[in-house]
Amino acid sequence: MRTRRKPWAEEELNTNPHVIREPLSMKGKWKEYFKNDNPVYVEIGCGKGGFITENAKRYKDVNFVGIERQTTVAGIAARKIDENEENIAIICGYAEKLSDIFEVGEISRIYLNFSDPWPKKRWAKRRLTHRNFLESYKDVLGESGEVFFKTDNRGLFEFSLNEFCADDWKLSNISLDLHNSDFEGNIMTEYEEKFSSKGMPIYRLEARFKR
Amino acid sequence: MRTRRKPWAEEELNTNPHVIREPLSMKGKWKEYFKNDNPVYVEIGCGKGGFITENAKRYKDVNFVGIERQTTVAGIAARKIDENEENIAIICGYAEKLSDIFEVGEISRIYLNFSDPWPKKRWAKRRLTHRNFLESYKDVLGESGEVFFKTDNRGLFEFSLNEFCADDWKLSNISLDLHNSDFEGNIMTEYEEKFSSKGMPIYRLEARFKR
Repeated sequence: MRTRRKPWAEEELNTNPHVIREPLSMKGKWKEYFKNDNPVYVEIGCGKGGFITENAKRYKDVNFVGIERQTTVAGIAARKIDENEENIAIICGYAEKLSDIFEVGEISRIYLNFSDPWPKKRWAKRRLTHRNFLESYKDVLGESGEVFFKTDNRGLFEFSLNEFCADDWKLSNISLDLHNSDFEGNIMTEYEEKFSSKGMPIYRLEARFKR
Repeated sequence: MRTRRKPWAEEELNTNPHVIREPLSMKGKWKEYFKNDNPVYVEIGCGKGGFITENAKRYKDVNFVGIERQTTVAGIAARKIDENEENIAIICGYAEKLSDIFEVGEISRIYLNFSDPWPKKRWAKRRLTHRNFLESYKDVLGESGEVFFKTDNRGLFEFSLNEFCADDWKLSNISLDLHNSDFEGNIMTEYEEKFSSKGMPIYRLEARFKR
């Protein structure tokens, strides 16, 4: 979903103290940045930030980083953060080279929420659950780590199940209809609210690996 | 699905040469029975036999055993087998103690097709993909082996994904809509034909383990 360009968004990204303006300089320095040893959870493609800002409010003993490549959307996410919130940061940029921004082990969990399904077969490598991406996540998750993934797209979910399994991740809490399941504590993204209100199923899984 | 009792079915089970009348005496003797070293594939709950008899026709280098507990249905399956077919057998009985009938390693593949979903939570242990059953399959599959599973029931498929993963099976070829996928060579069961013609998705997976 494209969001119409908002002129204030760029200004927000340049001035909001929660925005990391030089992400490449952060590698190896995240504990220093957050001033604690708490685990860092990263949402790749955080969109308008509803999910990650709500998480940051609810879980004070975790540090959250949202990455979003679209300027306007990233600006909206940044503006959503309470001024005195200390456990959240936003990066506006691509997530293709996570290892440029994070040292091995600096991330404990990656969230992929409603990632672009890139439906055509020839686009498979662009999907954030393609095995090349899964391998790259291992470079920042360290010794062990997890990916929490949800989507409304059946094709993407099927593809992802197969990719995670082929890449030897251990799956759990797989849901083919999240909103009619026993799963508790789900925090919805903006997209999820809109979509699930139409009664369509949301798919979800948790994936873990041990090196 | 219950099938109305057919009086001839019992007679069929008593006389048809493809029916194993004393399955407990077969343990360790399947190579002898089939007179070759070909792998044995077992369908648990073979119903009216459409799937297993078609497989037996198509794959002459595999031996097929269908297990079905309902007498009438098992009789229908038996009657479907061509007289001179040498690579197929039917057992009328429960599959709860596969290891009473098969030695470790005597089965190479188990098919579970449209197994009873036992939808209520308190019935979970009766589902043929409950981890207790998955563990029991390892007792007959031997060093390595596979389970091919398909169902139209989303709840059962979700449950099964989680059980296989929890029990450390390696999954592949997971499909959330088999009849609209690239999967080739699917042989339909009677139930599948009826169900998929209504346009509902069929779920499928392959599970393998290494001891």
